[in-house]
Amino acid sequence: MNEVQRRSSEDSDARTRSRLIEATQQLLTTGGARALTSRAIASAADANLASITYYFGSKEQLVTESMIAAARDLLAPVVNTLSSDGEPTVKMLESVALLNRILDEHGDDLSAYLEVLAASPTNPSIAAALQALHRDMARVLAEQIDAQLSAGQLPSWVSPTAMAQLILAVVHGTLVASVVDPGRTDSTAIGTQFARLLLDARTTARTK
Amino acid sequence: MNEVQRRSSEDSDARTRSRLIEATQQLLTTGGARALTSRAIASAADANLASITYYFGSKEQLVTESMIAAARDLLAPVVNTLSSDGEPTVKMLESVALLNRILDEHGDDLSAYLEVLAASPTNPSIAAALQALHRDMARVLAEQIDAQLSAGQLPSWVSPTAMAQLILAVVHGTLVASVVDPGRTDSTAIGTQFARLLLDARTTARTK
Repeated sequence: MNEVQRRSSEDSDARTRSRLIEATQQLLTTGGARALTSRAIASAADANLASITYYFGSKEQLVTESMIAAARDLLAPVVNTLSSDGEPTVKMLESVALLNRILDEHGDDLSAYLEVLAASPTNPSIAAALQALHRDMARVLAEQIDAQLSAGQLPSWVSPTAMAQLILAVVHGTLVASVVDPGRTDSTAIGTQFARLLLDARTTARTK
Repeated sequence: MNEVQRRSSEDSDARTRSRLIEATQQLLTTGGARALTSRAIASAADANLASITYYFGSKEQLVTESMIAAARDLLAPVVNTLSSDGEPTVKMLESVALLNRILDEHGDDLSAYLEVLAASPTNPSIAAALQALHRDMARVLAEQIDAQLSAGQLPSWVSPTAMAQLILAVVHGTLVASVVDPGRTDSTAIGTQFARLLLDARTTARTK
């Protein structure tokens, strides 16, 4: 294979791979886990049945990668909001509101995400993908917190790394509670209490 | 069966049931999930093999109930600390320290607990047991917060129910992070940042 052919083959590989991921996401949204036969995915992606094993090793792996990609897409507006210019308090409250909307709109996908989480200790590639997503989110949050800390907007006891992990823990923990006790879990109320705690810490920093 | 015989039979049922749960917990701790054959459990509990299905329906159900019972036992000292007399700030910091110690000492069981969580949406009896544990913890926490609120030790925006759910979310979320990124998750640092946020809120309430 010459250089041009090699590149073209790589492009085609990448295209088939992302078509399979998009088809899986589509089928998950419209028909749920039960609609996800290998045949249905391959047909929706206009790919042959063997391509699933070729590119992902197994259907389960494809489903997991699709879900992690979906989580990354879902969280993109939150990351954009946090990274945008603007008053930190406003950005933070907007992010909490965005996260609550995501939790509300995608409540049905939460237990599937929890299954992916539970599978991670025994599946190295799921573990790697989840870890990468988790670290990306933690990094963006820590950068924001660090900037606010440098500007004297947060008390000096705040650790950007640990506070970023705390924020992610609140998101993950709210998700777990939504699955364990959907009737009594009020994710907006939880988010609001946390936002108020953060705002109080900012106020304390200012008045010191 | 007369009344005496019926009572004696109920006692014997309850004893066999708890012996099976204790044996499962013991085997989980010493040998992990792989040591958990039905035969090993029945033998360690001095019960016959059929008793597992008779009392629990399946081995999986027995394992789940054993894990939820273990979680309840593990959390008992935290509940006792929170319910004891004493300065609320001190009790809260002690509870955070206790939780961190539990996370550190039982790190290996966390992914098993996450599997139980993930199974709850499709298993009604797991869901019921987890929900009961979750609600018990939320109730104890909300009572504590309510008392502090009535004593004017917390700002008036604090909602006991939502704040209790937030605290549980931090615990669950830290657990998820410990599974997703064990190398970078510092549960003590997360707990400390959260405790500082709570203490700052108390300070704000006092100075108002």
